[in-house]
Amino acid sequence: MYKITNISNGVCASKGFFSDGVSAGLKAKNARDMAFIYSEAECEIASVFTTNKMYAAPIRHFRTKGDFKTNFILINAKNANAMTGKAGVEDINEVLAHTASLYPQIKNPIMSSTGVIGVRLPKAKIKEGVKLFDLSKKESGNASSAIMTTDKFSKEIALKVTLDDGSTFSIGAMAKGAGMINPAMATMLCFITTDADVKQKEMQEILDEVVVTTFNAISVDGDTSTNDTVLLLSNAKSGAYDREAFAEALFKVMHFLALEMVRDGEGATKLVTYKVTGAKTDRDAQSVAKALSDSLLVKTALYGEDPNWGRIASTVGASGAEAYEETLTISFNELCVYKKGDLLFNEAMEEKAAAIMKLAKFTISCDLGIAKGSFTAYGCDLGYEYVKINADYRT
Amino acid sequence: MYKITNISNGVCASKGFFSDGVSAGLKAKNARDMAFIYSEAECEIASVFTTNKMYAAPIRHFRTKGDFKTNFILINAKNANAMTGKAGVEDINEVLAHTASLYPQIKNPIMSSTGVIGVRLPKAKIKEGVKLFDLSKKESGNASSAIMTTDKFSKEIALKVTLDDGSTFSIGAMAKGAGMINPAMATMLCFITTDADVKQKEMQEILDEVVVTTFNAISVDGDTSTNDTVLLLSNAKSGAYDREAFAEALFKVMHFLALEMVRDGEGATKLVTYKVTGAKTDRDAQSVAKALSDSLLVKTALYGEDPNWGRIASTVGASGAEAYEETLTISFNELCVYKKGDLLFNEAMEEKAAAIMKLAKFTISCDLGIAKGSFTAYGCDLGYEYVKINADYRT
Repeated sequence: MYKITNISNGVCASKGFFSDGVSAGLKAKNARDMAFIYSEAECEIASVFTTNKMYAAPIRHFRTKGDFKTNFILINAKNANAMTGKAGVEDINEVLAHTASLYPQIKNPIMSSTGVIGVRLPKAKIKEGVKLFDLSKKESGNASSAIMTTDKFSKEIALKVTLDDGSTFSIGAMAKGAGMINPAMATMLCFITTDADVKQKEMQEILDEVVVTTFNAISVDGDTSTNDTVLLLSNAKSGAYDREAFAEALFKVMHFLALEMVRDGEGATKLVTYKVTGAKTDRDAQSVAKALSDSLLVKTALYGEDPNWGRIASTVGASGAEAYEETLTISFNELCVYKKGDLLFNEAMEEKAAAIMKLAKFTISCDLGIAKGSFTAYGCDLGYEYVKINADYRT
Repeated sequence: MYKITNISNGVCASKGFFSDGVSAGLKAKNARDMAFIYSEAECEIASVFTTNKMYAAPIRHFRTKGDFKTNFILINAKNANAMTGKAGVEDINEVLAHTASLYPQIKNPIMSSTGVIGVRLPKAKIKEGVKLFDLSKKESGNASSAIMTTDKFSKEIALKVTLDDGSTFSIGAMAKGAGMINPAMATMLCFITTDADVKQKEMQEILDEVVVTTFNAISVDGDTSTNDTVLLLSNAKSGAYDREAFAEALFKVMHFLALEMVRDGEGATKLVTYKVTGAKTDRDAQSVAKALSDSLLVKTALYGEDPNWGRIASTVGASGAEAYEETLTISFNELCVYKKGDLLFNEAMEEKAAAIMKLAKFTISCDLGIAKGSFTAYGCDLGYEYVKINADYRT
């Protein structure tokens, strides 16, 4: 067996990783807006990118490189470098060549961006910003705040895994979210660093598996940005590894950050878990869970703290999954409000349900009563603040 | 050729149709909340119902009847009779049997409901309400207001078709919308009456065709209710018919009502046409148009009158349709803001685009530049009022 414990220092927690955030004047008031992650040793890379067909220049740039190792990621906020075509990729090459000329230890650097779509990178400012980097810094907190856009708080975590033989490795990460996704300014970005001695192919397999139940199980507004990125870098510095332990720790890291993103969803006041069971297939369960977490009517009912189970039932029915009102059961936390055709709901229950909906976190369970398919998704409410944030974001 | 002209009296415009709305105390302040449509002669029926698997009791009731003719529809607001199982269907049978006992001329009556989900029909009130009906009334305005829920205005239309030989027939209709769809209280209902001498099979074919580019091309909030219903009744009283003329008039009736629903979308301040062309297939174009009209980020940008074309591009990319940033062109009315990779947008253009977005109606065009697939959808903005209406609807 193995042991997993929380440690500090986010993306700098693992051996040989360095990070910092600086201000290049992209954000107002000298707020940090650029960050780097640097590793002493070149790293294997696992990645997951947006499924959006208008994927941004940093993703194009990454994909043109084929198989490669890197030891440096440059990250900027305020400009997504999306819808900028070939010029966008050329801008990245120019900025990264400039960066490598300043820091010769950099190998195969890559870039990641978040911000406004359809505007060329402010190269001059970014090139000046790069000069402020100190590659010996381990300031993960500065980095995680630099990549924020409409995020209200920064998001980082690190875990240490101790194996049976006493050997250890770590996984650290930082992320930004806010809208999931707000293509005008926000985007989901996540950077994970590890000193585990894991091979690229296996690391990619595990990442692909874990992303399904973490970042792909959350929704703030149902949109998919041009820039969504998860990058996992391993430099093998610990010499230690165990697949099961690594997969579990990676899940814990990504699950924590995914829920932090929902909690920080634009205008969100509640974190709601949608637990769907009894579906014909896992895929059906996923359709239902996603339909619930995306539904405007469910989200506004959550905001209004209105235990409107009829909207839940209707959304289940509209999800495309096989479902029957005679087999469906709906609960708010442990409180069953509808059971296989029985209209249980009454005034006493309404009071109890309303009390549950006032909680900052609660679970809505739907048992479809058909077979064993299950999926759990996470969402938030939608209130006036979401409209305010998004009605005129760029100004 | 044929001539189509607007006439008055909505669902009562066609020969032999009668309608009225009364108050049964379901809504507050003695507002009208029950309506009927009666035809002297039994009618052929064409229908389109919600795809929601939790379809409401009135739809269950309709479907159990097999092939039949009717001359009477009973409609109530405030209660959807959804998620009420077999009891919901028994309630309908009881109410309709009572109605038929009062009015012996009724044959095979059907029922349609809109309102709160998961509460049994208030049968006593409805049975009392039915007593107030006068089947000789032609008060289509009373009926169209009785079926409103969160609608801000009632929706009715009637057209007269004059064929080459001087013979005429009419099509009249009323609808309610508000949320498209708000399963808690609103629902899309549409009732169409005609004295055209059209056979059931052909009428159903034409209805199925027309619904694609009308009611299925609009979106207020992307939800699909338990009760969505379009019923088309023909009593053949005019003795006149021409397929092409009938199809065109039916399209005009349904297109008008569809756009009225969007204009009256909960909290909507703008009616936006999404014209998608150049897609690989019509189906791809439909995916893009629907993604745009459903996107929260696009809808909030519309509300903020922010010409954020990057959100349009991102939503096109996330729609699932084949799309490339190098072939995409985006316009607001006639103003092209992005053309096949060229970042045309500048401050002067921003002013012009913002002026267009202040209009109550405008068109966002996306030419995907791939092939000839096209589709046009209609949507509205989403502002504070939508949240207000939906955050605590039932109270």
